Amino acid sequence: MKALVYGGPGRNSWGETPDPRVIDPRDAIVRVDAVTICGTDLHILGGDVPAVRPGRILGHEAVGTVQEVGSAVSGLQVGDRVLASCISACGTCVYCRQGRYGQCLGGGGWILGHTIDGVQAQYARIPFADLSTYQLPASISDEAAVLLADILPTSFEVGVLNGQVQPGDTVVVVGAGPIGLAAILTARLYSPSHLIAIDKADSRLQAAKQFGADITIRPDDDPLEVVRSVTDGLGAHAVLEAVGIPETFELCTTLVRPGGRVANIGVHGRPATLHLEELWIRDVTITTGLVDTYSTPRLLNMVAAGQLDTGRMVTHRFALDDIIEAYDIFARPAQTGALKVVLTRS
Amino acid sequence: MKALVYGGPGRNSWGETPDPRVIDPRDAIVRVDAVTICGTDLHILGGDVPAVRPGRILGHEAVGTVQEVGSAVSGLQVGDRVLASCISACGTCVYCRQGRYGQCLGGGGWILGHTIDGVQAQYARIPFADLSTYQLPASISDEAAVLLADILPTSFEVGVLNGQVQPGDTVVVVGAGPIGLAAILTARLYSPSHLIAIDKADSRLQAAKQFGADITIRPDDDPLEVVRSVTDGLGAHAVLEAVGIPETFELCTTLVRPGGRVANIGVHGRPATLHLEELWIRDVTITTGLVDTYSTPRLLNMVAAGQLDTGRMVTHRFALDDIIEAYDIFARPAQTGALKVVLTRS
Repeated sequence: MKALVYGGPGRNSWGETPDPRVIDPRDAIVRVDAVTICGTDLHILGGDVPAVRPGRILGHEAVGTVQEVGSAVSGLQVGDRVLASCISACGTCVYCRQGRYGQCLGGGGWILGHTIDGVQAQYARIPFADLSTYQLPASISDEAAVLLADILPTSFEVGVLNGQVQPGDTVVVVGAGPIGLAAILTARLYSPSHLIAIDKADSRLQAAKQFGADITIRPDDDPLEVVRSVTDGLGAHAVLEAVGIPETFELCTTLVRPGGRVANIGVHGRPATLHLEELWIRDVTITTGLVDTYSTPRLLNMVAAGQLDTGRMVTHRFALDDIIEAYDIFARPAQTGALKVVLTRS
Repeated sequence: MKALVYGGPGRNSWGETPDPRVIDPRDAIVRVDAVTICGTDLHILGGDVPAVRPGRILGHEAVGTVQEVGSAVSGLQVGDRVLASCISACGTCVYCRQGRYGQCLGGGGWILGHTIDGVQAQYARIPFADLSTYQLPASISDEAAVLLADILPTSFEVGVLNGQVQPGDTVVVVGAGPIGLAAILTARLYSPSHLIAIDKADSRLQAAKQFGADITIRPDDDPLEVVRSVTDGLGAHAVLEAVGIPETFELCTTLVRPGGRVANIGVHGRPATLHLEELWIRDVTITTGLVDTYSTPRLLNMVAAGQLDTGRMVTHRFALDDIIEAYDIFARPAQTGALKVVLTRS
């Protein structure tokens, strides 16, 4: 089969690799029908995720059709149409038993396109297939479903829920890429009074307005002053970090009010400075997290019910064979206006 | 009257100052019967709290007798014996209405010995006296009560409750000074499986054992290895920072397990490094906070009921006139074995 193979920082290629096969009775082999590229894949290409070694097939967000199941798989059959989630879960370790699937100790967690081969390929092996996939109703398109493999549950769980967004809050989302936009979309479910997006790119700020932000700010337009002006000078109740660099994280800690929450969603490759000399007294809660995907069934139901309009998220579509071009478009959003790019089976 | 006056970094003096007087109808004037010195006072002397200006009377933990009340004070009478809490509260601002008295916007919060004159004096003005003081039953001694002005509610609220200590947890307390020991004492209320104290001073580690720690570690004895050895290699459920320097905060973030909590109690004068390149994926919650004292009535009841044995906390006793000597003893715990020092009216 063909697959997108990581070749070390800054390098990837599309070419022939061996077909995946069942190596554990809990595996399924899935034919990839739709797949997308994640900001995390760009972090990998940037060298920020050193656990990814050269030779690894990337990708952790796909919709596919089951081709083969191992002898211990009970909930899937050949031909089933499934969402292949970014998180695999053994289901029995101490973390899985708490629903913290992202921290699975039994060989799961975020493994696809990270510590095992991923789904930017014609076929993929999905470990622990019963817990790591979701049957898709016919009413949800491949394109809508693939956004539920990572960005929607990530933004919802690690951003909105960790940030404890509540009705009447002022919420700031720093970074209006796909993760930030998904955070805006799902924060809206809790009826904040103000939903403020910060980004350098005007095209992304426009998208943020379409997804539900009522105020948009460029970083050099004094975000602190704007946030204070709508919060009686106090700052935001919740600030969601959706970029993954020290500067944006540090901005978040200046925008949050006493008693507020900073929820980090971004993938970071470098340490940040934590200004404890100011924050020690301010009752601030900072959370980090990898998505657990416990919310995926709920989000799927909401998409099916028409409560989450993700349609504007996909800006570019390609055949899977054109994935190198898709990476290029996705990596230059300021020039291309790319949000999510979706690749489909030729 | 006489009072302890801050003279700038490294300098304080005991001498004559004007008597305090009622300047707001919600004030009370209290005769100080017992007062203590806080680690925060040492941070102030070290220059870590620049809001404290030279000329300020220090101190925010006292027991006293009401001498005079303003016309708007309804719950206190002359002669009442009260705890003067480190936190004053207007009771009506947006934070007070949430019970977040430490963040009071109405002129309260931590103001005593910080932005207004404090209680290391023969007399003190206590603003918002109805909410900022607690009537003391005869069964609680001055010495026991004065520990409830700051360290017990601080360690309980900002450490144990923010750290969400639960039965069966492994809890690490970094720093076994008075705040750390009070954290150990109040963490015990939630029945952790292991309560681990880390400190440089053997005398403080001995005290930690008396207060309920079952494992004690010196910082150079590989705390990470010890913590992992009792947690199946995972790390602690909750780590409470009770020192206030970057190194100890950073140690906390290495000792916490995925999904765990780091509760910062320490007063910091410098930024710390937050290793987001490791923590972004680990579901860690970090909290900071100033005590709100919402737990003070509960803690007073528990002391009265004999549930909190704070007796071993006070190691040195002085007359108020000898406060300069008391500061010296308190500032050199490795040599003096000092935990809390209590000064009483001569």
